[in-house]
Amino acid sequence: MKTKKLINSGADAVDEMLQGILAAHPRHLYAVEDMPRAIIARNGPRKGKVGLVIGGGSGHEPTFLGFVGKGLADAAAIGNVFASPPPDPIIACAMAVDGGAGVLFMYGNYAGDVMNFDMAAEMLALDEIEVRTVLTTDDVASAPADQRDRRRGVAGNVFIFKAAGAACDLLYSLDDVERAARHANARTYTMGVALSPCSLPQTLRPNFLIGEGEMEIGMGIHGEPGVAREPLRPADAVTDELMDSILGEIKADRGDRVAVLVNSLGSTPMMELYIMMRRVKSRLDDAGLVIHTSLVGNYCTSLEMAGASITLMHLDDELQRLIDHPCDCAMFVR
Amino acid sequence: MKTKKLINSGADAVDEMLQGILAAHPRHLYAVEDMPRAIIARNGPRKGKVGLVIGGGSGHEPTFLGFVGKGLADAAAIGNVFASPPPDPIIACAMAVDGGAGVLFMYGNYAGDVMNFDMAAEMLALDEIEVRTVLTTDDVASAPADQRDRRRGVAGNVFIFKAAGAACDLLYSLDDVERAARHANARTYTMGVALSPCSLPQTLRPNFLIGEGEMEIGMGIHGEPGVAREPLRPADAVTDELMDSILGEIKADRGDRVAVLVNSLGSTPMMELYIMMRRVKSRLDDAGLVIHTSLVGNYCTSLEMAGASITLMHLDDELQRLIDHPCDCAMFVR
Repeated sequence: MKTKKLINSGADAVDEMLQGILAAHPRHLYAVEDMPRAIIARNGPRKGKVGLVIGGGSGHEPTFLGFVGKGLADAAAIGNVFASPPPDPIIACAMAVDGGAGVLFMYGNYAGDVMNFDMAAEMLALDEIEVRTVLTTDDVASAPADQRDRRRGVAGNVFIFKAAGAACDLLYSLDDVERAARHANARTYTMGVALSPCSLPQTLRPNFLIGEGEMEIGMGIHGEPGVAREPLRPADAVTDELMDSILGEIKADRGDRVAVLVNSLGSTPMMELYIMMRRVKSRLDDAGLVIHTSLVGNYCTSLEMAGASITLMHLDDELQRLIDHPCDCAMFVR
Repeated sequence: MKTKKLINSGADAVDEMLQGILAAHPRHLYAVEDMPRAIIARNGPRKGKVGLVIGGGSGHEPTFLGFVGKGLADAAAIGNVFASPPPDPIIACAMAVDGGAGVLFMYGNYAGDVMNFDMAAEMLALDEIEVRTVLTTDDVASAPADQRDRRRGVAGNVFIFKAAGAACDLLYSLDDVERAARHANARTYTMGVALSPCSLPQTLRPNFLIGEGEMEIGMGIHGEPGVAREPLRPADAVTDELMDSILGEIKADRGDRVAVLVNSLGSTPMMELYIMMRRVKSRLDDAGLVIHTSLVGNYCTSLEMAGASITLMHLDDELQRLIDHPCDCAMFVR
């Protein structure tokens, strides 16, 4: 059975989506001329400011384009569905946002993205644009804690990009932006659960199979295998399983503050996310941790996958200031 | 086959959701004491301001609670899934937001809501709180144009509530708020398409059946029958079908401005919404209409139903000013 999608053709879906995004948000976003996969914030880049370029595959909306705007990322390079962009749009993004203070690349830790962003950085070095790279590695399920560098980047991107974008907007130096971005990443932990697959526009077929009544803990946002396949349990038990993993890693003292994200992987309704949020709050209360801010909704999706992820960013004074810094994006205003 | 949901029990889902909402957004929202289904904006109500109370059944999140906050609604009374709230939380909302200038009730035109809000209004009259009511009737599919009063209220609520909330925040009199709200409603048109059903938490069974490869044009947000069941067509053709209905009603001249909402019914990804948005733009360009502002995403959902709706609000100077007025809600900031 083919998944029903409101598309015209699988091959055109990403480009038509981008045209729709520009049609909807012309005051926030524009595409580099002749480079429709390089999307720039109208009010973000400026002289003397480090330019923040994010990006990766499509299918995770509002990640990445939702986070391009004043106070957050200056540009996003967009790939095909679940596939890295090639170097060209990444280079175009960097050129468009370079304000003479250097450029930071930030994206999830996936081999294809690393290859393409690194190639872009090498090319930009020839143009004397200094590029630094910070990979996001917040997915607790994707590698052991002592191998954090091997972890993938998932929904925690939202907070990590937000902190880095604020640092750029506050005119931190490139060294300092890089430091703050690494610091933000190191203190961000995400754990997810998938209940159903999604279908790529090109195939209209599920990208994995999962049984009736089953869930997969720790599944990646492209359907990468998780850590356990189990019978679906009540929301509180599922939330506990995710929170146990996160709280087992976070080195927090009672009274410490956290930013919380309860994220839908696509088709899980807000009702269910808030039911999970209720349990997150209760677990944080028990641990003596204080919720400084919370986001609940569709922030990093996998098309219409059912499931959710929980992210905690362990705040300190600097991260709290950066997370609180205002931003004005087409799909995210704070 | 039962739908998989991240809930604890169907009976507790709404109350646990509300607890999660308060846990996530304590700076924006609180519940009236001993009345957990009456949720109030912390910074909205004030002396001399008309209080705006919205509400209806759960399952449409972020409608209604997402639109409670400074500059928008002052309170929402929340019912069970797809069911009206009883009078008590509605009365509690009105008492909490009354600033001495009267209270406006706004909600979608459904028999259960009308009965309960009207009962609440009668009780409040005994307490000498003046209540006016404006029903939203934006769903083009639900009755002919010459019977606008019989139409249901759907996603256009977002713009209609926004206009009325801005009028309240600008300290319009009760007469003037009511006039502006009716004016906003009269110029707002929504048409939707459903691709798949949703399941209520109590039953975990689909609320209607639809064939493989089929869509239903004009289906209501609770699964009310639409105007045509057809084979699914490409996104542009589906968008044209919805836009033809809307543009056939809107009395606009070339150069007129519109606010656009492309709304997911729940599980339809942003990629598909933006592909539709691209076609909306092209149709508006052809009609000579100017997009003043656009929203694309999950604004008025039916749990995890697949499908989308398109709303146009036909702006004039007053509506444009009201739509542009800033608001600060937990789930909606503009």
